[in-house]
Amino acid sequence: MQFLSDNAAPVHPRLWEAMRAADAPDTPYDTDALSRELDARFSALFGRECAALWVATGTAANCLALATMVDPHGGVVCHEEAHIEMDECGAPGFYLHGAKLLLAPGNGAKLTADAIGEVLAGITRGVHQVPAQAISITQASEYGMVYRPDELAAISALAKQHDLGLHMDGARFGNAAAFLGGAPAEVAGPVDALSFGMVKNGGMGAEAVILFDTAKADMIRFRRKRAGHLQSKGRYLAAQIHAMLDDDLWLENARAANAAAAEIAAAAGDRLVYPVEANEVFVRMNADERAALRERGFAFYDWGDVCVRMVTSWATNPDHVRLLAKAVSAL
Amino acid sequence: MQFLSDNAAPVHPRLWEAMRAADAPDTPYDTDALSRELDARFSALFGRECAALWVATGTAANCLALATMVDPHGGVVCHEEAHIEMDECGAPGFYLHGAKLLLAPGNGAKLTADAIGEVLAGITRGVHQVPAQAISITQASEYGMVYRPDELAAISALAKQHDLGLHMDGARFGNAAAFLGGAPAEVAGPVDALSFGMVKNGGMGAEAVILFDTAKADMIRFRRKRAGHLQSKGRYLAAQIHAMLDDDLWLENARAANAAAAEIAAAAGDRLVYPVEANEVFVRMNADERAALRERGFAFYDWGDVCVRMVTSWATNPDHVRLLAKAVSAL
Amino acid sequence: MQFLSDNAAPVHPRLWEAMRAADAPDTPYDTDALSRELDARFSALFGRECAALWVATGTAANCLALATMVDPHGGVVCHEEAHIEMDECGAPGFYLHGAKLLLAPGNGAKLTADAIGEVLAGITRGVHQVPAQAISITQASEYGMVYRPDELAAISALAKQHDLGLHMDGARFGNAAAFLGGAPAEVAGPVDALSFGMVKNGGMGAEAVILFDTAKADMIRFRRKRAGHLQSKGRYLAAQIHAMLDDDLWLENARAANAAAAEIAAAAGDRLVYPVEANEVFVRMNADERAALRERGFAFYDWGDVCVRMVTSWATNPDHVRLLAKAVSAL
Amino acid sequence: MQFLSDNAAPVHPRLWEAMRAADAPDTPYDTDALSRELDARFSALFGRECAALWVATGTAANCLALATMVDPHGGVVCHEEAHIEMDECGAPGFYLHGAKLLLAPGNGAKLTADAIGEVLAGITRGVHQVPAQAISITQASEYGMVYRPDELAAISALAKQHDLGLHMDGARFGNAAAFLGGAPAEVAGPVDALSFGMVKNGGMGAEAVILFDTAKADMIRFRRKRAGHLQSKGRYLAAQIHAMLDDDLWLENARAANAAAAEIAAAAGDRLVYPVEANEVFVRMNADERAALRERGFAFYDWGDVCVRMVTSWATNPDHVRLLAKAVSAL
Repeated sequence: MQFLSDNAAPVHPRLWEAMRAADAPDTPYDTDALSRELDARFSALFGRECAALWVATGTAANCLALATMVDPHGGVVCHEEAHIEMDECGAPGFYLHGAKLLLAPGNGAKLTADAIGEVLAGITRGVHQVPAQAISITQASEYGMVYRPDELAAISALAKQHDLGLHMDGARFGNAAAFLGGAPAEVAGPVDALSFGMVKNGGMGAEAVILFDTAKADMIRFRRKRAGHLQSKGRYLAAQIHAMLDDDLWLENARAANAAAAEIAAAAGDRLVYPVEANEVFVRMNADERAALRERGFAFYDWGDVCVRMVTSWATNPDHVRLLAKAVSAL
Repeated sequence: MQFLSDNAAPVHPRLWEAMRAADAPDTPYDTDALSRELDARFSALFGRECAALWVATGTAANCLALATMVDPHGGVVCHEEAHIEMDECGAPGFYLHGAKLLLAPGNGAKLTADAIGEVLAGITRGVHQVPAQAISITQASEYGMVYRPDELAAISALAKQHDLGLHMDGARFGNAAAFLGGAPAEVAGPVDALSFGMVKNGGMGAEAVILFDTAKADMIRFRRKRAGHLQSKGRYLAAQIHAMLDDDLWLENARAANAAAAEIAAAAGDRLVYPVEANEVFVRMNADERAALRERGFAFYDWGDVCVRMVTSWATNPDHVRLLAKAVSAL
Repeated sequence: MQFLSDNAAPVHPRLWEAMRAADAPDTPYDTDALSRELDARFSALFGRECAALWVATGTAANCLALATMVDPHGGVVCHEEAHIEMDECGAPGFYLHGAKLLLAPGNGAKLTADAIGEVLAGITRGVHQVPAQAISITQASEYGMVYRPDELAAISALAKQHDLGLHMDGARFGNAAAFLGGAPAEVAGPVDALSFGMVKNGGMGAEAVILFDTAKADMIRFRRKRAGHLQSKGRYLAAQIHAMLDDDLWLENARAANAAAAEIAAAAGDRLVYPVEANEVFVRMNADERAALRERGFAFYDWGDVCVRMVTSWATNPDHVRLLAKAVSAL
Repeated sequence: MQFLSDNAAPVHPRLWEAMRAADAPDTPYDTDALSRELDARFSALFGRECAALWVATGTAANCLALATMVDPHGGVVCHEEAHIEMDECGAPGFYLHGAKLLLAPGNGAKLTADAIGEVLAGITRGVHQVPAQAISITQASEYGMVYRPDELAAISALAKQHDLGLHMDGARFGNAAAFLGGAPAEVAGPVDALSFGMVKNGGMGAEAVILFDTAKADMIRFRRKRAGHLQSKGRYLAAQIHAMLDDDLWLENARAANAAAAEIAAAAGDRLVYPVEANEVFVRMNADERAALRERGFAFYDWGDVCVRMVTSWATNPDHVRLLAKAVSAL
């Protein structure tokens, strides 16, 4: 019974269908019909003009988006436990040619305008310090917490005041949207670029980079090619994305994952380390309790000594969820 | 009737099957069973120990392989019309952190030991010049010509003499193997790293990087992650690769493409610019002739003013081939 | 008798004086009085607003200037024998983070608008190719030839038409100015950035980077620091530059070097490979003739099999010049 | 009365003499007699074979040294207030092509083997994290504290155990040596590379990079050229270095600076934040006290709200020191 991560779930059947339907020959790279429709498709979804490109991974999506905002000598304010800082093997250093991540603290891996402001306030020594040029936040955060529209507005206001780009890592954007229940534009807030995640939400190997600053679209297309991320059979990636948007499959999948997490959360009660707003559940548990759960067939990650992480996905078996909830509440 | 490129053909049915079979949950990245078998699989294929990694594109494969051989201040000798020089938007400059391509001429985009030697002979001014650290050749070449084992041996000897790495871009390695008819080890020759192409040969989005210098395998795994090329659902890429190797599907597909090209070549006669050894046919043709063929429904690329390029694939319709051959011979 | 290069001549006495005069404590980096005056000083010299920064070497000056114009995924059109291509160990690849030099031919290492246009005309395949973003020319050229104002105007017009930056490597800008006899603004033409060379012209270790696009001044100051080129005792570099501009010492020195070269050129007659417009003389000479001259104590570089290079400087001993001229004419 | 920094003091008279003596023409770059003697000179000083190169700045020295140890995908463990982290505008990110600084805490900006070990212990997730490849320490530290031989031995043992390079930023190496009183080899300990600082200790624009791993000397020479740090009149830098080593001028200068700092420290008594072991004095002081001192003509930096930083140099006027000591003790 797998609660390790949402990143290894199967591919959703409707995506398989869409990929097979794309099997007829078409023109290569992103010149096929499906790829060419992405700009329009996401512009409609967000209700404002944007450019949309497929790439295979969230790491590439994040880094390509940030590269439109940050000079090699610049910096990106992000949470000290952000995925770009912790889990991408220095990919931002590679894609941004040595630019620096400027770390801020924050509960549940969420940044606040105050915490960002403190980082910015420390940059006072001119050319001797790396200047901040962008802010990157994660929606939902690495601990499954969701930025509310007013929080996004406050961060955006700060970004504008300091002339910084604003990037959102949306590896679990769908889960945040399912939680907030609002329009995608509200979930993203006034960001300049968004990594719209799909792989954790039923995709195979396609994420969408969304640029609301469409003047940068040309640049990012060059950078994608240069990074070896312009696949020649791009239509199979575009097909996944279209299928995910059709009839809001992305929301449907995310709701399923969130519901499963909520069920476990309810059972965990005051063992919860963070409020469960998306599909990740962090539960305080000692070594004996962990062992007991594992003995019974539940797989999950230790998250330091204090707690464990349990993640659900669109494909998590509801029976497994029920069993886990029961086991957790019985601890 | 499509003769533009082999890079937009459909995915082979046996790869679809293999991907669907991989749909059960497994562990992420390259920790799944299929990915873990790749080293052994390619070691068996080449009869010598190697490390094998999947990546989505040939550009990534080439650049990651070269990154194991070349310092940021070093250089790579390659043909002046090599794909890494002409078609990858400076990807080697990105992945190699500013290293330089050192260009050599050669008929049919093939390098000779002599031509490489001349480039090396020009590097005499110590720290003022970029030092060569690797050679990159393409098998089959950008003009569809194939290196013979003795040619590979001569280039390898030169590489060893100058302490250079030797990389082979095998975007059309299958076509070269189908032409030579020998063991894969002979087709690759004594190279240190090989980009084993699959996408042009029936794949969806998986190529294999083969490192015969296994001491570098660790490094390239970090670099793949850092480049955003470590897909979390890597099992779908591994599945493609296994399916391609099963029962030598890669050779079967390449033979079909080569046979189609040979049929057109036979019809072209002395209009051929290069001997046709793989699946690319370069045919001298004036503007009127090109127009006439296009009028009849054949799609192909102009290759300068003198000739056109026609490319076949495993999926090229034999009827289309026959019609094209007939039309060309009638010119 | 040294005719190897102008880059190892002694430091001019007036620069020594100026450096000693700067020995009083002042504030560090470029916050001292002398450094802060550079913008105004060069704005006056060129009759248009500019930002001016000291750096220690021409390589750093060229690369920092180009970094204000070229993205990591972009390209710089330059002569195939330009210093940035031939002699800087890949420094542009380092400073521009992998950007590419796009080479054009041209007599005497001079580019023409036509030759540049031809390179630009070959860039047609979108994201698959490196896009040109700047042109770099050398005044005087690597073969000691000087761009005339109309040639600069033509190149600048082309740059504007294609939205490219225009950079001038002025390692021997003084020699070009001495030859043309016009105002510095005419010698530079409408370039966006200029590496104003001093080390070959009597300096110790200070060159000036001039940015006519002052909006980029901020960026280049960060980049200079990041490259380890912001010396803490910058006032000694600024002092050299001011001394060089005082009473047009830079022109006086360059005139002396040019006159020495002209004397040798007159003696060489139709052995000259290029017209001698600055301080470099390329003389056709066979092996025996070279040996004979060296036997008599003249030091100079072979330039391939056909000719030798003889360079003069502000400090070249006039007696040595006379002896060399005599010896060359007697060949 | 200047106590802001040692980095803007004048150039020592014996260095001026040595530079003037180098004014005769010699061969360029580092092929002159003085530059060629540096390896032998420093090998003798440290009693073990090393390669020694001049560069203009400590930033370049640090970064070039680290580049011999760290891959672009690697990391460097350093103190969270190290100069390379705080004051070099991301230069390590540039020179190391995106490699990451891995920060550790420690009193007085000194690292302990334990603190380093804790950073290393956190690197457990394979390719998802940046692997540590080097440790960088500063002797004397950014707060003027000195590593003792046993502390260096412990850190070196840890480095060896984890196969990490060990770099020492010796911007104030002379001050540490003057404090410890031992042989240079003891002050450096078993490091692999040392930035031997001179500019803060009486130099104009020359520091020495010392590589005890001489196999890397070739590589660093290429990198220096590529970074635009190979000055053509290198003999003037070499001359500074030789003069500094002659009759232990570097120690004499450092002793003078340390003595001045000690005098102020004695006056500060329990207002000291850190023990004064080199030439930096951090004194607790409120706003009124700061204002009072400045009123009387003393210049120094605020170091946050709690304390100020006062730095002495070889050239600090002893009368000023006496006056400052008196003023501080009278607070």
